[in-house]
Amino acid sequence: MRENFFSLRTVMWEEGCVKMIDQTALPQRLVYKTFDSWEGVADAIRRMVIRGAPAIGVAAAMGVALAADRSRSEGRDQLLKEIDRAAEGLRRTRPTAVNLFWGIDRVVATARRAGPSVDKIRDATVEEAKRMAEEDVESNRRLGAFGAPLLDDGDVVMTQCNAGALATVGYGTALGVIRAAREAGKCVKVIVNETRPALQGSRLTAFELVRDGFHCTLISDTAVGFMMSSGRVDKVIVGADRITRDGYVFNKIGTYQVAVLAQRHGIPFYPAAPRSTFDLKRTHDQIVIEERAYDEVVRVKGRRIAPKGIPVANPAFDKTPPELVTCIVTDFGLIRSPIEQNLQTVIG
Amino acid sequence: MRENFFSLRTVMWEEGCVKMIDQTALPQRLVYKTFDSWEGVADAIRRMVIRGAPAIGVAAAMGVALAADRSRSEGRDQLLKEIDRAAEGLRRTRPTAVNLFWGIDRVVATARRAGPSVDKIRDATVEEAKRMAEEDVESNRRLGAFGAPLLDDGDVVMTQCNAGALATVGYGTALGVIRAAREAGKCVKVIVNETRPALQGSRLTAFELVRDGFHCTLISDTAVGFMMSSGRVDKVIVGADRITRDGYVFNKIGTYQVAVLAQRHGIPFYPAAPRSTFDLKRTHDQIVIEERAYDEVVRVKGRRIAPKGIPVANPAFDKTPPELVTCIVTDFGLIRSPIEQNLQTVIG
Repeated sequence: MRENFFSLRTVMWEEGCVKMIDQTALPQRLVYKTFDSWEGVADAIRRMVIRGAPAIGVAAAMGVALAADRSRSEGRDQLLKEIDRAAEGLRRTRPTAVNLFWGIDRVVATARRAGPSVDKIRDATVEEAKRMAEEDVESNRRLGAFGAPLLDDGDVVMTQCNAGALATVGYGTALGVIRAAREAGKCVKVIVNETRPALQGSRLTAFELVRDGFHCTLISDTAVGFMMSSGRVDKVIVGADRITRDGYVFNKIGTYQVAVLAQRHGIPFYPAAPRSTFDLKRTHDQIVIEERAYDEVVRVKGRRIAPKGIPVANPAFDKTPPELVTCIVTDFGLIRSPIEQNLQTVIG
Repeated sequence: MRENFFSLRTVMWEEGCVKMIDQTALPQRLVYKTFDSWEGVADAIRRMVIRGAPAIGVAAAMGVALAADRSRSEGRDQLLKEIDRAAEGLRRTRPTAVNLFWGIDRVVATARRAGPSVDKIRDATVEEAKRMAEEDVESNRRLGAFGAPLLDDGDVVMTQCNAGALATVGYGTALGVIRAAREAGKCVKVIVNETRPALQGSRLTAFELVRDGFHCTLISDTAVGFMMSSGRVDKVIVGADRITRDGYVFNKIGTYQVAVLAQRHGIPFYPAAPRSTFDLKRTHDQIVIEERAYDEVVRVKGRRIAPKGIPVANPAFDKTPPELVTCIVTDFGLIRSPIEQNLQTVIG
């Protein structure tokens, strides 16, 4: 069996700094950026230097840890106040993916529980953030193991955006299932939807799959229906940024229409996400869908593709209702249809 | 009522040459290119200097006329042979839009009917090609008049690709309906799908609509489902490259999935096309869908957006089955559902 994991880590704690792959430079250059302040990490999340729900969850947690670790506070209260301020700043970066809030809340809670010593608080937050990075890879491997049996040898699997190693600390969620299927000896081919406007499909998923020797084919987002109607897609696997308790899957813009088309063509549609992506407190109508910058739509790699003066709508996410979902793959097991009822049983 | 036609002609016969807007330079620069050989015109069609089914029909007809007009043949047979050679070369440029073949066949037939004089043959082919350009604008205006009552004041209409003045000699088919509705005093807003890979929506439709003062919004192709599911689309109007006798609408890649989504959301879906786009000899399974170049998918305006070594699928068109079509707008009237039966009555 070939060694097939993406051998790089997307985000890591290194020598008191947060180091991450600069995803805005891909696929041309694979470079790391290093941050020594929570503000730098917040800016990186906002500008999508790092993206992907699980990855930004861990990055934000590390951002809070950075605030604690670099703090000169000598008393617990002052340190916790600084931690809260960093947490608040990091929470404001992106509204849709729930992992961000989960990651921040977890290190803040750890800090509060760490006792009176400021040194212990610092160490505990850093350790917790590092632990979360390790757990992310482990949970993706568990998720992959649960999902792999859904794929058959010879399958052609379509994916939207990037829910791969680059969207997590390593291994990936949707692409983790594909990796796990390959590790189990199955040959799986991948159709990569380019995923405008930010092109995470062509820039990131294609990069990651080519690098790891997968057989894959890149298409424009307009060709999804054609590929399905000409019988060239067996399954769809995507990631998720938030799954609400009523079973709605929030994910990268375009996911919903892929799901509608999959249903029309009788193609199974599988979102894959770890426990931290589930938001059991909210229903779909309570979630803010981020509207991103004008420039993402009118420019590609700095080149203008639309006339001046054209107004733009640029929603970054959409929501797929549970009736379009065949089964959700999690690190706790599969959530089969009817999604809404079974979600509570598996995750709740 | 404001003067609202696109005042430029996309393609014209001028001083013995074929002159056309270079659509590859839009939206940055509005420039014309002039061709004095049929080979130049064929190359322009292939490279999408000119595109849009009705426009390439007229351009190809003018290409044949150019071959006749520039010929030094002194006998009818030799001239007709040259005309046939040009026709054959022009036919090989793009396979899917039927207007191309219709345009070529029509001038070739005119040449054959023009009698024994080579001068008369030359004049007749040039006159026929020029007449076709005039007829195109007239037929688009008739089509617009038939379609305008389908739109209500205040409607938001989504369109794919460019079926506007730039896809025709002038006025447009899908956008012609929107122009006609505005001329009838209705306020109609347009959502422009960018239409990767060649970006005819963001580059051409947006250019044309902004220039003519329409209220429009540009979106990525991934946002179609989101816009519909959030209630922001009232109707869809698209052009067509070929409509077969069984009612299948061949149009720019992405049209099929827009139609599927429109049906899910109860949004009327209207293709608009002149008589020359109907192919009553063939059914949908007999049509070749053009596969275009690798570079269209992996580069945008010269900038690479995908890693080296990634395979690509780049179908340029797709087909929408008649059950997804609410009504086809033609220059002969409306073809209502059931499309397949009514098509024969209106067009046959």
